[in-house]
Amino acid sequence: MGAVKTKRMPRAVREQQMLDAAVRTFGQRGYTAASMDDIAELAGVSKPLVYLYLNSKDDLFATCVRREATALVAAVRAGVRTGPPADRQLWDGLLAFFTHTAEHPDGWSVLHLHARTHGEVFAAEVTAMRAEIVAFVTHLIGDAARAAHHDPDLPDHDVAGLAEALVGAAESLATWANATPGVTARQAAATLMNFAWAGLGDLMAGRAWSPPPV
Amino acid sequence: MGAVKTKRMPRAVREQQMLDAAVRTFGQRGYTAASMDDIAELAGVSKPLVYLYLNSKDDLFATCVRREATALVAAVRAGVRTGPPADRQLWDGLLAFFTHTAEHPDGWSVLHLHARTHGEVFAAEVTAMRAEIVAFVTHLIGDAARAAHHDPDLPDHDVAGLAEALVGAAESLATWANATPGVTARQAAATLMNFAWAGLGDLMAGRAWSPPPV
Repeated sequence: MGAVKTKRMPRAVREQQMLDAAVRTFGQRGYTAASMDDIAELAGVSKPLVYLYLNSKDDLFATCVRREATALVAAVRAGVRTGPPADRQLWDGLLAFFTHTAEHPDGWSVLHLHARTHGEVFAAEVTAMRAEIVAFVTHLIGDAARAAHHDPDLPDHDVAGLAEALVGAAESLATWANATPGVTARQAAATLMNFAWAGLGDLMAGRAWSPPPV
Repeated sequence: MGAVKTKRMPRAVREQQMLDAAVRTFGQRGYTAASMDDIAELAGVSKPLVYLYLNSKDDLFATCVRREATALVAAVRAGVRTGPPADRQLWDGLLAFFTHTAEHPDGWSVLHLHARTHGEVFAAEVTAMRAEIVAFVTHLIGDAARAAHHDPDLPDHDVAGLAEALVGAAESLATWANATPGVTARQAAATLMNFAWAGLGDLMAGRAWSPPPV
């Protein structure tokens, strides 16, 4: 840090501009098709400066993945306060999640679509972010089940599965909402609450759906 | 077809063995790390024969994606009969889905993890398969809503969102179930029915969860 300086713009600011351009380019074209030329042009800087600041295309992509993952988890955490009932906490978390993915569609594409299979380093970043969100949701569902007391035997295994289902549904809906004109973050969050909470609510109250006998 | 023949084994059989080996290798290592040497060795054939039959690594991967996508959609379709109530149809479809992904974990990894970002051709195959399953689920939810008559105003937009949520939840749960020892296909399907149907059931009966005012 600090080796290169201009009087007009601090390095940190210029770096964020390069990262903004990189996330946009990677998000819209994917890792392979995105070129460092495009990124430099979009950022309004020379290609050598991008290499000087952010090293290589791989490092640049890794930095993008880390920045976007951190921002998404922070947005969800900032949206939720402990204290209100579980359904309100879940609603607040979902609204924060869909608001963030709607406002950062290219960041969401980088995380959900492009980072998963481009090498173990990127996949590991995304897996860690996802695990943090799943743990948060697992905790929320476990708390709600204990508070409801109707189904004290809801096993940890089931809670983990419900959390995986909820996170998968949210990921899918975020991608769909970003690709579907006219769907707001609030509508996407409401759709998922209708889907998930009315379902989870019944489960908490001991009204589970019974599969037919084998 | 048919240019190369041996007396011991028809080409079609040998090709399937190569594809089995390829799906296993791609599924466990990913596209980039998988080598044609590994695939040939696992299939018990020479590497030139793999190239002769299946052309290139790209073509081989594309053939794997197409075969696994076709098999998954066929398995879900075969599991569902029209006629029973919507929840039974959904249960049958989910059970068929989770049974297939549990029995073909490497095929599922190829489709869900590796095919999405390795070039537009592969992504297009997976997108088409996913669209077919989403359309099937959308149809099912629309039918159920019309049959219930409690919420005749459930807009198409909402139905599409619910279908996306359900498919995303199923994808997430299939990946989780395959990575979690002791979770059977039946348990995964039951978890998703508890999550989704009890929720959808309430929605069909007009008992939607109401978000707090803005």
